[in-house]
Amino acid sequence: MSEVPTRGFPDWEYEGRTVAAQTMLAERRLDALLVCTEPEVRYFTGFHTPFWQSPTRPWFVVVPAEGRPIAVIPGIGSASMGETWIQDIRTWPAPRPDNDGVTLLATTLHEVAGTEGRIGVPMGHETHLRMPLADWEELQEATIDVAYHDATDVVRSLRMHKSDLEVSKTAYVCNIVSDAFEGIPDLLSVGMTEREAFAAFRIDLLRRGADDVPYLVGATGPGFDDVIKQPSDRVIGEGDLLMFDTGTVFDGYFSDFDRYYAFGSAGDAARRAHETVWDATEAGLAVLRPGITTSDLWAAMADVLDAGGSLGNDVGRLGHGLGMQVTEWPSNTHDDETVIAEGMILTLEPGLTWAPGCMMLHEENVVVRADGPELLSRRAPRELPVIT
Amino acid sequence: MSEVPTRGFPDWEYEGRTVAAQTMLAERRLDALLVCTEPEVRYFTGFHTPFWQSPTRPWFVVVPAEGRPIAVIPGIGSASMGETWIQDIRTWPAPRPDNDGVTLLATTLHEVAGTEGRIGVPMGHETHLRMPLADWEELQEATIDVAYHDATDVVRSLRMHKSDLEVSKTAYVCNIVSDAFEGIPDLLSVGMTEREAFAAFRIDLLRRGADDVPYLVGATGPGFDDVIKQPSDRVIGEGDLLMFDTGTVFDGYFSDFDRYYAFGSAGDAARRAHETVWDATEAGLAVLRPGITTSDLWAAMADVLDAGGSLGNDVGRLGHGLGMQVTEWPSNTHDDETVIAEGMILTLEPGLTWAPGCMMLHEENVVVRADGPELLSRRAPRELPVIT
Repeated sequence: MSEVPTRGFPDWEYEGRTVAAQTMLAERRLDALLVCTEPEVRYFTGFHTPFWQSPTRPWFVVVPAEGRPIAVIPGIGSASMGETWIQDIRTWPAPRPDNDGVTLLATTLHEVAGTEGRIGVPMGHETHLRMPLADWEELQEATIDVAYHDATDVVRSLRMHKSDLEVSKTAYVCNIVSDAFEGIPDLLSVGMTEREAFAAFRIDLLRRGADDVPYLVGATGPGFDDVIKQPSDRVIGEGDLLMFDTGTVFDGYFSDFDRYYAFGSAGDAARRAHETVWDATEAGLAVLRPGITTSDLWAAMADVLDAGGSLGNDVGRLGHGLGMQVTEWPSNTHDDETVIAEGMILTLEPGLTWAPGCMMLHEENVVVRADGPELLSRRAPRELPVIT
Repeated sequence: MSEVPTRGFPDWEYEGRTVAAQTMLAERRLDALLVCTEPEVRYFTGFHTPFWQSPTRPWFVVVPAEGRPIAVIPGIGSASMGETWIQDIRTWPAPRPDNDGVTLLATTLHEVAGTEGRIGVPMGHETHLRMPLADWEELQEATIDVAYHDATDVVRSLRMHKSDLEVSKTAYVCNIVSDAFEGIPDLLSVGMTEREAFAAFRIDLLRRGADDVPYLVGATGPGFDDVIKQPSDRVIGEGDLLMFDTGTVFDGYFSDFDRYYAFGSAGDAARRAHETVWDATEAGLAVLRPGITTSDLWAAMADVLDAGGSLGNDVGRLGHGLGMQVTEWPSNTHDDETVIAEGMILTLEPGLTWAPGCMMLHEENVVVRADGPELLSRRAPRELPVIT
């Protein structure tokens, strides 16, 4: 077992992120960046709490042209935010539906951007505005002299490139999950329900040192095509397949990979499908290096799936970025064309339909190094494991 | 232990929700309702998956003036959505950043609302639009003849009033959490780190039958005011206080209550604070019945806190709604003024600062019945429990 990474990040990590954002803001003639979603707020401040699950209160962080970010947040967050590197923390007594931070935010934006300022806000793919739409409209009216511009590329390009400290957290949780997947033959058996199997696996991951298992989906049966499914009371039988796909977390960083198992015995078609998706991953690993694109990576895997007789799949891509969220930019698709760079954490996730209603999805997690991929998940066996 | 409630809901539950929404749409001369967030999509369809944690793909459900809702969703969700009562499922191969469902959604909206139609969208407090802002603007352009109106009150009033089946799920998980809280003296002890204590409690909740523990915060020490905190490596010492606050889940329904403990011994000020917040809850329970408002409920609790010498608190309210999310409408505040009705599930959550930097927060979960509150959490003891 690898050493437990230090929790959190030193201030210089946040400073580096902030300065990098400010360089990009300057290039785009933007006076500030406004973010309001959990990963973006955490990325710039270190503010980390599951409290975001409460939809009641909006939270804002403003990255000015220079200096540390400014937090414009509900009072309930002031103690937690006070523990981060942020110095300028402005709070209002939320919830206050008739003015839930709008005036305070407008004042802050005017302060950092002046009138006729230009503010960047993520508006593009994989982003959303975590505040009531009516409040967004009110904010625009309260800052009618300010222009809002899409700044998706700023947060996208920053978050896609992971620091060594970020990588160490994902590597650590991937190691825990790899151990847990290797322990599945001792943990699960014919006669358990899906629900019992999920609970046993979730508890096992926690016992091994994961902070939480926010994402766990899976299925059992002779074959299945629902790959985002929650457990049922179905009893695992002889000859069944089992798929588990988990996004497990350490210190706010996710793993995201799956494994398949057969109970008792495995049919030829399922075994061939397992080998084909494994081979597709191997083809992806072989071409993956800085300078190729996500579409090159997609093509290398898609060729193997096609040659293996894939009937297609509904997932829409063959892997994606990974880090503070279970899926992040970029996407491995035929037309994504993101240039892959050192320090990106990616999943390779080729999937195929091997019979109607029967999907086989395989996933590994890697960090891109100068000379190619370094596996963070422990490579699956090519042969479908059979639990006897 | 109470019986495990049946998973999911019968189709008539979804039909009832849909017809109730349609009645409200008609009253507001709206042709359809558009929702795109996890709880709203689940509320009308039963579609239930942790896959929402992936920010990549938007999901839409359109509730027309009559008939079943229409799902406009990424292909990866078609198998899961196909298991629900929804019949009209329209998919596109997401992710497709240049048109991620916008055209398909625009076509659907025109179909149900015609040109010059009026579409309701939740835009108010506690809501947000879970789609890229740029896509929202594109949608508006693609449906320039359609008018979008705030429909927060439709989803708010429906979701605030729980059915018996919904109540049974929250009741069940509250019972599990009550058992787990009662077991804390056997589970935790001086010398453990906060992190070990969190892990032990989380695993214990899962062992007792919870599906997941998405929300767990807490703190230890002589006193603390950060009530949304994650665990540290701090070692629990003699004389420390411990607070755990958890939103634990069964079948997609949350509990949300906390408990305090002292290790070895408790100081007088902390003990008095515990009794004051308990008394404030008791005062809330005494007045709570259909017909009073959330502000009446707030006042009953606030009076006791004031009399007990509270230095205030940063939480911003004294409890809230509870159900598919760890916090829901309404809020117990001085000016919320929501009329409380039978079937609402509420938390009573009085908090006070008993010394600078020292907060005491107490929480119970209740369902409102015709004759008053029925506790779903097992009532805490008035005296601060001391673990010896």
